[in-house]
Amino acid sequence: MRLDLNIIQNLVATYLEEDIGRGDVTTQTTVAPDIYARGKFLAKSGIVLAGLEVAELVFQWLDPELQLEAFYFDGDTIAAGTEIARIEGPAHVLLAGERVALNLLQRMSGIATLTRRYVKAVEGTGAQIVDTRKTAPGLRIFDKYAVKMGGGRNHRFGLDDGLLIKDNHIALAGGLAIAVKRARETGSHLLKIEVEAATLEQVKDAVKVGADVVLLDNMTPEKVREAVTLIRAEEPAGRRTLTEASGSVSLETVRGYAEAGVDLISVGALTHSPAAADISLKMTAA
Amino acid sequence: MRLDLNIIQNLVATYLEEDIGRGDVTTQTTVAPDIYARGKFLAKSGIVLAGLEVAELVFQWLDPELQLEAFYFDGDTIAAGTEIARIEGPAHVLLAGERVALNLLQRMSGIATLTRRYVKAVEGTGAQIVDTRKTAPGLRIFDKYAVKMGGGRNHRFGLDDGLLIKDNHIALAGGLAIAVKRARETGSHLLKIEVEAATLEQVKDAVKVGADVVLLDNMTPEKVREAVTLIRAEEPAGRRTLTEASGSVSLETVRGYAEAGVDLISVGALTHSPAAADISLKMTAA
Amino acid sequence: MRLDLNIIQNLVATYLEEDIGRGDVTTQTTVAPDIYARGKFLAKSGIVLAGLEVAELVFQWLDPELQLEAFYFDGDTIAAGTEIARIEGPAHVLLAGERVALNLLQRMSGIATLTRRYVKAVEGTGAQIVDTRKTAPGLRIFDKYAVKMGGGRNHRFGLDDGLLIKDNHIALAGGLAIAVKRARETGSHLLKIEVEAATLEQVKDAVKVGADVVLLDNMTPEKVREAVTLIRAEEPAGRRTLTEASGSVSLETVRGYAEAGVDLISVGALTHSPAAADISLKMTAA
Amino acid sequence: MRLDLNIIQNLVATYLEEDIGRGDVTTQTTVAPDIYARGKFLAKSGIVLAGLEVAELVFQWLDPELQLEAFYFDGDTIAAGTEIARIEGPAHVLLAGERVALNLLQRMSGIATLTRRYVKAVEGTGAQIVDTRKTAPGLRIFDKYAVKMGGGRNHRFGLDDGLLIKDNHIALAGGLAIAVKRARETGSHLLKIEVEAATLEQVKDAVKVGADVVLLDNMTPEKVREAVTLIRAEEPAGRRTLTEASGSVSLETVRGYAEAGVDLISVGALTHSPAAADISLKMTAA
Amino acid sequence: MRLDLNIIQNLVATYLEEDIGRGDVTTQTTVAPDIYARGKFLAKSGIVLAGLEVAELVFQWLDPELQLEAFYFDGDTIAAGTEIARIEGPAHVLLAGERVALNLLQRMSGIATLTRRYVKAVEGTGAQIVDTRKTAPGLRIFDKYAVKMGGGRNHRFGLDDGLLIKDNHIALAGGLAIAVKRARETGSHLLKIEVEAATLEQVKDAVKVGADVVLLDNMTPEKVREAVTLIRAEEPAGRRTLTEASGSVSLETVRGYAEAGVDLISVGALTHSPAAADISLKMTAA
Amino acid sequence: MRLDLNIIQNLVATYLEEDIGRGDVTTQTTVAPDIYARGKFLAKSGIVLAGLEVAELVFQWLDPELQLEAFYFDGDTIAAGTEIARIEGPAHVLLAGERVALNLLQRMSGIATLTRRYVKAVEGTGAQIVDTRKTAPGLRIFDKYAVKMGGGRNHRFGLDDGLLIKDNHIALAGGLAIAVKRARETGSHLLKIEVEAATLEQVKDAVKVGADVVLLDNMTPEKVREAVTLIRAEEPAGRRTLTEASGSVSLETVRGYAEAGVDLISVGALTHSPAAADISLKMTAA
Repeated sequence: MRLDLNIIQNLVATYLEEDIGRGDVTTQTTVAPDIYARGKFLAKSGIVLAGLEVAELVFQWLDPELQLEAFYFDGDTIAAGTEIARIEGPAHVLLAGERVALNLLQRMSGIATLTRRYVKAVEGTGAQIVDTRKTAPGLRIFDKYAVKMGGGRNHRFGLDDGLLIKDNHIALAGGLAIAVKRARETGSHLLKIEVEAATLEQVKDAVKVGADVVLLDNMTPEKVREAVTLIRAEEPAGRRTLTEASGSVSLETVRGYAEAGVDLISVGALTHSPAAADISLKMTAA
Repeated sequence: MRLDLNIIQNLVATYLEEDIGRGDVTTQTTVAPDIYARGKFLAKSGIVLAGLEVAELVFQWLDPELQLEAFYFDGDTIAAGTEIARIEGPAHVLLAGERVALNLLQRMSGIATLTRRYVKAVEGTGAQIVDTRKTAPGLRIFDKYAVKMGGGRNHRFGLDDGLLIKDNHIALAGGLAIAVKRARETGSHLLKIEVEAATLEQVKDAVKVGADVVLLDNMTPEKVREAVTLIRAEEPAGRRTLTEASGSVSLETVRGYAEAGVDLISVGALTHSPAAADISLKMTAA
Repeated sequence: MRLDLNIIQNLVATYLEEDIGRGDVTTQTTVAPDIYARGKFLAKSGIVLAGLEVAELVFQWLDPELQLEAFYFDGDTIAAGTEIARIEGPAHVLLAGERVALNLLQRMSGIATLTRRYVKAVEGTGAQIVDTRKTAPGLRIFDKYAVKMGGGRNHRFGLDDGLLIKDNHIALAGGLAIAVKRARETGSHLLKIEVEAATLEQVKDAVKVGADVVLLDNMTPEKVREAVTLIRAEEPAGRRTLTEASGSVSLETVRGYAEAGVDLISVGALTHSPAAADISLKMTAA
Repeated sequence: MRLDLNIIQNLVATYLEEDIGRGDVTTQTTVAPDIYARGKFLAKSGIVLAGLEVAELVFQWLDPELQLEAFYFDGDTIAAGTEIARIEGPAHVLLAGERVALNLLQRMSGIATLTRRYVKAVEGTGAQIVDTRKTAPGLRIFDKYAVKMGGGRNHRFGLDDGLLIKDNHIALAGGLAIAVKRARETGSHLLKIEVEAATLEQVKDAVKVGADVVLLDNMTPEKVREAVTLIRAEEPAGRRTLTEASGSVSLETVRGYAEAGVDLISVGALTHSPAAADISLKMTAA
Repeated sequence: MRLDLNIIQNLVATYLEEDIGRGDVTTQTTVAPDIYARGKFLAKSGIVLAGLEVAELVFQWLDPELQLEAFYFDGDTIAAGTEIARIEGPAHVLLAGERVALNLLQRMSGIATLTRRYVKAVEGTGAQIVDTRKTAPGLRIFDKYAVKMGGGRNHRFGLDDGLLIKDNHIALAGGLAIAVKRARETGSHLLKIEVEAATLEQVKDAVKVGADVVLLDNMTPEKVREAVTLIRAEEPAGRRTLTEASGSVSLETVRGYAEAGVDLISVGALTHSPAAADISLKMTAA
Repeated sequence: MRLDLNIIQNLVATYLEEDIGRGDVTTQTTVAPDIYARGKFLAKSGIVLAGLEVAELVFQWLDPELQLEAFYFDGDTIAAGTEIARIEGPAHVLLAGERVALNLLQRMSGIATLTRRYVKAVEGTGAQIVDTRKTAPGLRIFDKYAVKMGGGRNHRFGLDDGLLIKDNHIALAGGLAIAVKRARETGSHLLKIEVEAATLEQVKDAVKVGADVVLLDNMTPEKVREAVTLIRAEEPAGRRTLTEASGSVSLETVRGYAEAGVDLISVGALTHSPAAADISLKMTAA
């Protein structure tokens, strides 16, 4: 995923309007308009960096000539106390953009840092950590990018680019078989079909109707292992059904799921409960 | 603060576009358009509720006739396992709005729940818990509302509705005295002046230049107590300078700050690192 | 696909602004504001109807209380001379909305009518007619809906909901194998992979790298038949590769392609060169 | 008419959003971001070119540094097999913009090509070919520009820049005389008054009430000739009423109308039923 | 002109955002949310009313159920001390909308009142008072409507609905004859041609090239009289050229221009320098 | 206040759309596209300049390469007959932007000129002239900037950046004491509280409840003097309550209010009834 400049600039403009409103009255009244300042971005604890280019866009939206001098790139692991980047420009611009830039950078780096911990936890097992749609409303593009910077893989971006038949769909459609049949006949021929299963019985049914991917929901690692074995046994020769574990996954339990043989492990907490990474911006007169 | 319907509907529309994109292809292909469903919102752990009306607006944007049957109100404390509300309507609408509604409700209730813990921690001291501008970009209106539902008080909403002279301003203005003088002469006559101070020396200076509010930044509770005493001693008769503690505040330390005699304690973590409240929406055919 | 009311209303508003601009000066100056009118929509040649609800939305955007009395539904075949629907309301509203409503209805019915002819031409063969991205800019949602009303099936809606590796991608990626490998590893696990092939050699390669769908581009029906046979021979047991014919397809040649055994036939002309259906709106004073 | 850059860029942005959506997933996953490509625009049949600058804007919206090397200009006649233009730039940009650029270029050139055929058909008669408001919704600015490139003249752009009193207005106003009187008294003093007439009786009436332009609707060429003669006879000395033929005009019949002596012939088919011009964009690595 | 509801609602929303910003903090903190209020609109001096429906829309945008009880209509003459209308509803809504409603109503009534004075001043002469494009930016729709309510007539709404060839155009086109020739050949056949003339020589030229309207710019009433006489003498039999006086027109001089025989007198001051009408809104608890 | 470039460009774009609409048909048809022109801005009467940078932005929005050569700056006093600035560029751009640029410049300079007269009138008294929210809807940012250029000071920008408790709030809150108490407890701790008072009794009450600012509404200068004396007598030692006079203020009476000892005098007429400054733009071929 390459962050799309146009979309992001529009979002950034919205955030600046939210924070600045009618104007930065403190800076306007206290700092002379011709003062220049230097700012240093510092990691105050160990982090995986994400959002540095976005932070630069925040300042550039206010002053297109501003440029960040970056010492690290998104995806880099950064030790506590490290200077990440510098910026120099009109003090009015730096002060007006500071909070928005930090709010984005801290959230995105927080997500990347958390994701990296999950990725490390499953290292060597072949399982991939994927995100969910449990992102902060309006921030999905940033949240999903940060997951990627942390080493995770993105699940679908919205309800429109993936067929994922969950328990609610099955119940409201009148059964799994009819739901899959309809999806195959009227859905896009370019989409695979993923089916949620909470029991081994449902797993069997999913394979039987030809699910391309089976989502193993809220099972213990042991149950997941059984499910994977069952899928391998039931799927037709020549096909390989993908498997995804989901629900009840924490940093403590994630390796158990990975060792149970699934291809993907989705983790809502990556984006619904990340702690902000501790990054500061310290300014001095230039 | 009353949440402004028009602004919120526009934001909600944005979030639905983000999540639904070109359409909910799973529901469209698997669930017949005339199926009705019932959904139950359940608190899966103990929470302070915030965002229920916003969640209702999510569904109403998709179908103006939908109504939530609410058993609790924003601000209520809810025990684990409690049914919070019910909703009934076209299955297509419930499934399309589910994720956005939950993402908002879980974030807002997460913030309210965390705020309430801070508020309880300082109970009886007279100190008030206030938020900061460290909100998720684009979500400030929701984040600040949730803080209020948790029992906190809102600090300024942006850079335009408060004069808060921080270390950066003082440095770039060429000193505190000149900064306050300029703010008083050219700023709005309707705004008070808050000044950040990190040492007792700076506290003294702030009082001397007539700061209406002094922000005691990154001090220990003991140092805060000294600062408050100093302020009381230095301020002119007939005036009462407000005091605010900020930085290094956690659930463990917050009461210490409160007992040190400050009027306000601002806590960034309320909005930059809340964990999502665990709330589910379970559906059945209606 | 259910046409999304909110998106369509916004589009309709844009069209009305385009046509009405600063106001319908002829009607404003010649027709008294309190005059009511009745309008009849007439099919002046045989058509497949599409867009009647959209036409109604045009008038409703101008006056929310207006309602069309429809005698037919989208997808219906209508004989020349038939009255399709009636509308009654303020003359100012009917005259202001007339052109936009007809422009949409005529284009959409034109597409549906043309699609139906292709669908009829392949009847009984099992092949499905699908559209392309060769739609009028800004009108894709209407064009694709009209194809569906004509009995066709929709291909991907944009560049984001399907992986279709074309000759350009293969050339610029440095070969088919590397392109497919990358797509499988970094693309969404919910998307199938479709590969374009212009020669039998390329068809073989596509099957070899595990393409889920093979797009047979610009081949004669005979060559397509060979390609399908080759695919059936080469694909692993347990898998069934989908096939799509594309390019050089006309009403004369389409049945040949269908009988060659492909699953899908995509036809750009459905949406890039449809003739407007001949539908009129005749008004009288009410 | 000079195409207004700002308006067109906004429209182009809309079309790119429609086609690209959440991103060009095929290119993102298969083509490395640093690959450059060259594209050639080829006319695959004989056309009148229109829209080349618009096509360039499509790519420039994605990458402002991109430039088309144009060998022909809008309005030029181009033989089958001719290379029209070249473009070189990042492969990601060329692949993302390709479809939108071609969809615009093919529609606009299709309209220009068709218009040119009508213009040729009336050559030497003094009659001008004009367009109508039967354009594709949202595309009027492009459709009308293409008509001009084909050698046609533009009729009014919307309901706001021309007074055209049609049968419906006459009926709903309570007669022609009252309609024209009202238009003259309350309409802009800068607008002429055009009146639709379907019979010689109505033509006479139109001249009598002082119409500046008479629209001869759905008459045979012979009837049109009679109408023009009648107008010349009836109009006051010193005035010259303009005449416009409309309805039932095809490439076969258009010259007959022109020779009947009208000033203008309006043709809806130019914009409601043009076939896309066959233009391709072929890419190679740069 | 009927004020277009949709456009106006969007404008009104913009004005409310401008005034309310993040919220009406005074009302929110001082007045309980369930308080109802009654407001009376009073004319504090004699006025011609304009904008009452717009004022109602302001409140309805905040609360769709609110209705104004109007005792007068736009265009009515109202004596000092008269109650114009009443409104009753939630105090929060009345207080939040008050300023915007009054700002619109006072400006529009100010324009209508001033226009009426000019109209009265030329009563009986046959001349019409028309406005100009010298309106407050963004408020043209309201300013022009107010002129109409005052009894004036609207000149063109923008640069797109009238051909008015001024001194600058003549100079930059290389002479009047070439300018008019080009306008006639390439401009819309539905637009008349108005030509500015500052001397009798230019007036003669304008008639010679067939101007439909002659704008007599910055002449004395005597010179205008000569110009009108000249036009009548020079224009071909059967034609009647319209005349418009402009520039140096004040309430003192306007009758002189009218008596000089022109058809139209345009007055920039109507919209560029109107004094706000003195209207108040007084509230009491309901 | 620094005028925010991004916001202003968006507003300017709106004004240009309002004026230009579908295009400047006169210029398009009469002036060749390659003609260059020079324009001179002339003050035709004595003015205080405001809006020159905004006028430049108008032209730059149409052609980013255009630059104004300014001989004066906003805030300068300019004598009648002085050339203010020059501009040179494509004639099409200068003609298209002329009216919008002048409408802004004339309004803003009109406001600055009027404000300067009020400021001069109170010179030496220590009182400051402040504006109100009685601005033209949508133009507040320009109106308030112009006041500042005239030497005035800005009151609050909207309902969100100041607590001003007026008679209506007091009545609807159930009394002054309760209103102030609520505002202090639930309003932002960064806002002062201003209270409106129309009688000496109310003045006393305002001081008693601790108002930071007292607004003396619609009093004579004599009464204002009494009120100020009363405030000085009643306010606690160590506090200094600000005073503001408002209502019934004209150029004739303003000095009386200033000499009565108030700190601020607010004048609605500055922005609700300014006369446009007489500035022209004269063009010649370049």
